[in-house]
Amino acid sequence: MNTSTITSWTKRRDAKNETKEKMKAITGNKIIPTENIVGALEYLIKPKDKVVMEGNNQKQASFLSEALMHVNKNKVHGLHMIMSSISRPEHLDLFEEGIATNIDFAYAGPQSLRTAQMIEDGTMKVGGIHTYIELYGRLFIDLTPNITLVAADKADKHGNLYTGPNTEETPTLIEAAAFRDGFVVVQVNEITDELPRVDIPGSWVDYIVEADKPYQLEPLFTRDPRHISEIQILMAMYAIKGIYQKHEVQSLNHGIGFNTTAIELLLPTYGESLGLRGKICKHWALNPHPSLIPAIESGWVDSVHCFGGEVGMEKYIEQRPDVFFTGADGSMRSNRTLSQLAGQYAVDMFVGSTLQMDSYGNSSTVTNGRLSGFGGAPNMGHDPGGRRHATPAWLNMRTSEDPLAKGKKLVVQMVETHQSGNQPVFVDSLDAAEVAKESGLPNAPVMIYGNDVTHVVTEEGIAYLYRSDSPEEKKDAISAIAGITPLGRQADKKTTEALRKRGILALPEDMEIKRSQASRSLLAAKNIDELVEWSDGLYEPPEKFKTW
Amino acid sequence: MNTSTITSWTKRRDAKNETKEKMKAITGNKIIPTENIVGALEYLIKPKDKVVMEGNNQKQASFLSEALMHVNKNKVHGLHMIMSSISRPEHLDLFEEGIATNIDFAYAGPQSLRTAQMIEDGTMKVGGIHTYIELYGRLFIDLTPNITLVAADKADKHGNLYTGPNTEETPTLIEAAAFRDGFVVVQVNEITDELPRVDIPGSWVDYIVEADKPYQLEPLFTRDPRHISEIQILMAMYAIKGIYQKHEVQSLNHGIGFNTTAIELLLPTYGESLGLRGKICKHWALNPHPSLIPAIESGWVDSVHCFGGEVGMEKYIEQRPDVFFTGADGSMRSNRTLSQLAGQYAVDMFVGSTLQMDSYGNSSTVTNGRLSGFGGAPNMGHDPGGRRHATPAWLNMRTSEDPLAKGKKLVVQMVETHQSGNQPVFVDSLDAAEVAKESGLPNAPVMIYGNDVTHVVTEEGIAYLYRSDSPEEKKDAISAIAGITPLGRQADKKTTEALRKRGILALPEDMEIKRSQASRSLLAAKNIDELVEWSDGLYEPPEKFKTW
Repeated sequence: MNTSTITSWTKRRDAKNETKEKMKAITGNKIIPTENIVGALEYLIKPKDKVVMEGNNQKQASFLSEALMHVNKNKVHGLHMIMSSISRPEHLDLFEEGIATNIDFAYAGPQSLRTAQMIEDGTMKVGGIHTYIELYGRLFIDLTPNITLVAADKADKHGNLYTGPNTEETPTLIEAAAFRDGFVVVQVNEITDELPRVDIPGSWVDYIVEADKPYQLEPLFTRDPRHISEIQILMAMYAIKGIYQKHEVQSLNHGIGFNTTAIELLLPTYGESLGLRGKICKHWALNPHPSLIPAIESGWVDSVHCFGGEVGMEKYIEQRPDVFFTGADGSMRSNRTLSQLAGQYAVDMFVGSTLQMDSYGNSSTVTNGRLSGFGGAPNMGHDPGGRRHATPAWLNMRTSEDPLAKGKKLVVQMVETHQSGNQPVFVDSLDAAEVAKESGLPNAPVMIYGNDVTHVVTEEGIAYLYRSDSPEEKKDAISAIAGITPLGRQADKKTTEALRKRGILALPEDMEIKRSQASRSLLAAKNIDELVEWSDGLYEPPEKFKTW
Repeated sequence: MNTSTITSWTKRRDAKNETKEKMKAITGNKIIPTENIVGALEYLIKPKDKVVMEGNNQKQASFLSEALMHVNKNKVHGLHMIMSSISRPEHLDLFEEGIATNIDFAYAGPQSLRTAQMIEDGTMKVGGIHTYIELYGRLFIDLTPNITLVAADKADKHGNLYTGPNTEETPTLIEAAAFRDGFVVVQVNEITDELPRVDIPGSWVDYIVEADKPYQLEPLFTRDPRHISEIQILMAMYAIKGIYQKHEVQSLNHGIGFNTTAIELLLPTYGESLGLRGKICKHWALNPHPSLIPAIESGWVDSVHCFGGEVGMEKYIEQRPDVFFTGADGSMRSNRTLSQLAGQYAVDMFVGSTLQMDSYGNSSTVTNGRLSGFGGAPNMGHDPGGRRHATPAWLNMRTSEDPLAKGKKLVVQMVETHQSGNQPVFVDSLDAAEVAKESGLPNAPVMIYGNDVTHVVTEEGIAYLYRSDSPEEKKDAISAIAGITPLGRQADKKTTEALRKRGILALPEDMEIKRSQASRSLLAAKNIDELVEWSDGLYEPPEKFKTW
């Protein structure tokens, strides 16, 4: 009955074993000598291989990406790169050299300009632009890597890894290769006899290599309070009173903009004056933002689960284990995959920002000439269809009497009506549609779809989009808070009044907030130095943030 | 500036250390003697603790759940249980004894009747009914466990664990407790000096205990082909030709019903005759269904990533590492969290079944008196808002010319118009709405929402709901294939013809399928014995499936 023409079911394993034999020319155990890494990669990587390279959005396998630039192109070429984040110049140089030709990625923040250009030129062929967990998912379906190149803090000689506060996505990237006969190669800052704890078992790791210098790590989530404007403080007050308090938001995720930094710094002052401590903002899925320190110290925060670490926050976190997830050794545990799940399914609200929003509430940070990708925002910033449990805030979004109606995740966009440089944020159509055409993408790279947005906050007020009955009404509500942008000029006084009455719109007076209240003196910390003080000296900001 | 009244940031850790001291009365290391487990649990668990108990949908921490039934109720009571699956009688006995009072869960298949009763009686207070990954997400937000009680195959004396083919959700459950100063207690079938591989590092584990017998493991995904009817074969032909082929479905997830078993067994016969090998069904997020063996052996399947294991499939999987995810030791690696992510974000299609569907396509397996919960179906069975990459099938679902329009996941419901016992599947309103009222649930427990369903298949034909323009049209399309149910009788001939012309409806003649073709001779395997033959004797079915 078995008519199979398949001659082998172990092709991947046989190929791996064959390569392992060759690798004996370089090492007799799991440790690749630092100076032999290029030769090792030439053995380990075949032309057209699928290569996962850890460009995380914070941690970079920088030693390995640099080494890959030095392989003999006759031996290693045409690679299919799979990367969460295109972060470093050589991530793109690889394509100019022909070492790599194809890419599937999630985020290209620091390299968005050159990424757009190289896609348009055809130097780099894009399979898809993903969200983080979408890309992780594909590692187990149709993008299983032949090799995973990642970074860890420490390893022992058995290949057990300590990834500590910056565990991030490393375990997920490794799992995809380790369990389908791919290679796992890890650069470590240090090979040591004893690890603080084991984050990834040595059974999953083929080779480790001590890097010539520690992996690159960016303080991506540090915002200096000095740069928070009074407009941002005003909007933060709207948000706290008109959204957080109104809907009783207990669990949430914040994006990385100054708008949400302002909110974090207003909780112990303005939030306290409203009597909200213990009632809102108790549970967070969040990188360890230094700006959350005053709220933590003031007893607002029950728990924070982190996607990744943040440079300088290590000691503070170690001393606050009731709040942060830490290991038996005391240091933090982050996990991007699980924190994305938590942020998607278990929190009441996402608050983000954008560069462009159209009249239907669709938004994107992809603008002409810049292809920045998505990261995690589209996952945090949508109503997850698979959610079934109820919380007060979630139920608050139910507007229908249908017995099968359910609640909704709060998806809040906070934007000033104009970007810096006086570009209007509210536009007739997103650049994303144009970019899709130019780059030959099958979809317009929309960050957050209007159908998912429940609230828009600008300096003019709040649009409660979840209460609107039609796309036209949504447009009217957005227009009413779009200021003197082309869209804002279409706002009509009568309609605006009607929307206020129906609770679809709140202007400052509706919330009993005076613009004059919005003062920088409301910030619990006005600069990095004050954050350090709040932390009792435990927070150690990176040099570039120090002004003293 | 720091006005905090918080006196300790290490309450969880201090409490843990204090308990650890007391535990020295029972053990001087990580190993709890089997006979001392009840005493140990009395030390480790405090009244009202949040307790994660591994009721996985296959693997059960049965030794630990039985032990928990024997604790002194004066010492241990009022627990808040967090369980993926309410599977065993004592999971509910705990509530009758007052040892537990509250529960958050995802699935209650085997105990659905008693679960419904106990909720209605108030014996058990439900926080929420979840999907798996939603519940996992909450472990890192507002349901962080004080203790996690799970099962593994083997441990060494350092607490390193081998979970092998049935890794399932164990790592995720452990991570939530291990990294927030909760206790991790693992029952193992065997304590040994050397593990085949390490699936979970000993750093994450506080105590292990050798169980008196191996953990309970259910062959939940084995369907005997003997029970496949010709109607199911007919529907499978519709699906293969009218959906899989039409939309070029390359990656997918199947539910556990006989409908999808029939499809799996028709691929090497009917699918082959249509020339579809290598064109469809290449990548799967799926438990290792034995019924997939003939398709694998015939070269249809590139990869299968598994949520969990399946009893009897171990040796077969070990010999097919090109297809399945396996470790360096050869045995399978499953991971429910990652497979759920993959099934949600990385596959083209979900195919499931249901007990009831209303005229809008909403469906539920919760019927009066039975509260079965959700498991993973609502996650697989919806269009994930965070997906951004395109595949041919996904793009095929795009029906709008809007430049921001995107594709859609295919969500297919296959149902015969009547359940066994002649109950109509198509109903005016779901029992779920009534159950919500009776049990005081804030939401009706809907499994899959009509808005997400793209296709409905019955023995009458296929309704292509994604092409319909309105709820009315959706209802018309469903009515047209609802047979002689109350809904089906409302179908109107003229409307039906119009829907066929517009491609919203396909009857067998539209697909050039004759009912008489649907014969059991098309099944690649007609019984379990033939599956064993296909596997070259590697598949070892559990006793209860053997007829020889």
